[in-house]
Amino acid sequence: MLGLGLIGGSLLRALASAGRTAWGYNRSGNTVRAAKADGFDVTEDLAEALRRAAEEDALIVIAVPTPVVDSIAAAIAEHAPNCAITDVVSVKQPVRDAVDRHGLLGRFVGGHPMAGTAESGWAAGDGQLFRDAVWVVTVDDGADPQVWAQVARMALDTGAMVVPAESGEHDAAVARISHLPHLFAEALSSVGAGSQLALSLAAGSFRDGTRVASTDPALVRAMCEGNAKALLGALDEALELLTAARKSLADNADLTTLTDHGHAARRNFEQARRSEIRNLEPGIPAWLDQMRDAGRAGGVWRGAQPQQEGNKP
Amino acid sequence: MLGLGLIGGSLLRALASAGRTAWGYNRSGNTVRAAKADGFDVTEDLAEALRRAAEEDALIVIAVPTPVVDSIAAAIAEHAPNCAITDVVSVKQPVRDAVDRHGLLGRFVGGHPMAGTAESGWAAGDGQLFRDAVWVVTVDDGADPQVWAQVARMALDTGAMVVPAESGEHDAAVARISHLPHLFAEALSSVGAGSQLALSLAAGSFRDGTRVASTDPALVRAMCEGNAKALLGALDEALELLTAARKSLADNADLTTLTDHGHAARRNFEQARRSEIRNLEPGIPAWLDQMRDAGRAGGVWRGAQPQQEGNKP
Repeated sequence: MLGLGLIGGSLLRALASAGRTAWGYNRSGNTVRAAKADGFDVTEDLAEALRRAAEEDALIVIAVPTPVVDSIAAAIAEHAPNCAITDVVSVKQPVRDAVDRHGLLGRFVGGHPMAGTAESGWAAGDGQLFRDAVWVVTVDDGADPQVWAQVARMALDTGAMVVPAESGEHDAAVARISHLPHLFAEALSSVGAGSQLALSLAAGSFRDGTRVASTDPALVRAMCEGNAKALLGALDEALELLTAARKSLADNADLTTLTDHGHAARRNFEQARRSEIRNLEPGIPAWLDQMRDAGRAGGVWRGAQPQQEGNKP
Repeated sequence: MLGLGLIGGSLLRALASAGRTAWGYNRSGNTVRAAKADGFDVTEDLAEALRRAAEEDALIVIAVPTPVVDSIAAAIAEHAPNCAITDVVSVKQPVRDAVDRHGLLGRFVGGHPMAGTAESGWAAGDGQLFRDAVWVVTVDDGADPQVWAQVARMALDTGAMVVPAESGEHDAAVARISHLPHLFAEALSSVGAGSQLALSLAAGSFRDGTRVASTDPALVRAMCEGNAKALLGALDEALELLTAARKSLADNADLTTLTDHGHAARRNFEQARRSEIRNLEPGIPAWLDQMRDAGRAGGVWRGAQPQQEGNKP
């Protein structure tokens, strides 16, 4: 586990709880001391952690902020170039590009657990953080099915369910449902603060709409700036809807289009049920295409099925 | 109580619980039957309810949707022109204008309890809905201090706390912290629905940011369209912030301004403490100006103080 912040620290705890051998690295001595005091096998020495990974043929998990991914990939290329690698970073294409720059793409399958809190750091970690959460495991061209299965197994061991998605499609999707909501929360929060009376009257709609603006702005920037291209697309869609609504409100005091579409979309979201991805294993012919289609349709993968159709009595 | 929907129905229950004599009118026979079955004194006959109000010198509460306020004011002018009047409608200036058109302004003080749910109708009502909520009581020029005290007393009897505000300032404030959040939730919800994969990955930030889009769109329209002018101002502020952020993201992959301001504003909101309005009673010299200033500064009024400063031993 390279990085022991909220996500890396939670994952180290979850894997240890699941009975797996796991060790970690963090560059901060304070974090390493805190994790050791909690009984975990961790070090400040990156080379040492990676040499051990090479010796034990471990799955390496990159769990550092986006700006640090490149230097971590360089260290992996130096000390453990043959290990399977995944990551838990919130944007997928830039991580893939960094891994590729260091010649590690053949053993890499990306990941992104859709879980978090407004807190950060080792102390905020929780081995139960991923239970029932969605964990994206990427299905890009050239993905090694054995590495994919290893990464998916790790996600399932934390209690999460796996959604397969191509890296670029993941980034476009999280721009819509995570990064744009963060920008909206920041803007709403600023507009509310324009009036003390307004803040005094604020109730549920403002509280909920601005909740994620309490996230450390450095983390919001790392996520959103790291996904600038996809986020610009989602933001432009949103600005187009709001600008059209503004015109309709100014010209005709009418908000029918925005409210009807928004309400129908929210109902659709509330009523959506996940489908199970069945009869599909990494490595079977056209598995990447099938996994992508299944993920696009809202499917989740809960691991290899113990009984195949043909084996039933 | 003229209107027995979520707010009117909750208020009738709260006042009955507080031991006050209260009766209601609703135009729907189904609602009236349901309220009667629950043991309340209600009628489908508006003229009858108003004649009784005139006889008993009651405080009339307008609790109907904005588009119906004008016809209700006409009926009050016909049957009970000398009664004190308030309302619980979410926009204040249009109600004030309607009451004025029917010559009732001298006995009118507006109100707005900042409470609600995504539900509507008599059955969704709850006598505890207003407990610890903020209840705006308007302090416009010419307000009668005795009517103001009556309206504030009613609000306090439900467990709410009173924030005094001028009608136009109220409307500008709720545009910022209620109506704009509704528009944002509708737009976010629509953008999320642009991708099934996105909805499948949606977690807390999307769920919270779109929650109020589950409100009946007719209610959202009634609120927002009825406050078009103030809402356009708040929406323009928000669009300006988002457009500047878009440019900074596209040109420099930088969101510092938006995230720093948004985060600081949210922290300010979380840490805000309400101050108590003291030594200020309706009717004392310059009470309207003082009440407005106190409300603007985030103050709440909890009723006449039992002991005046000078009476202390």
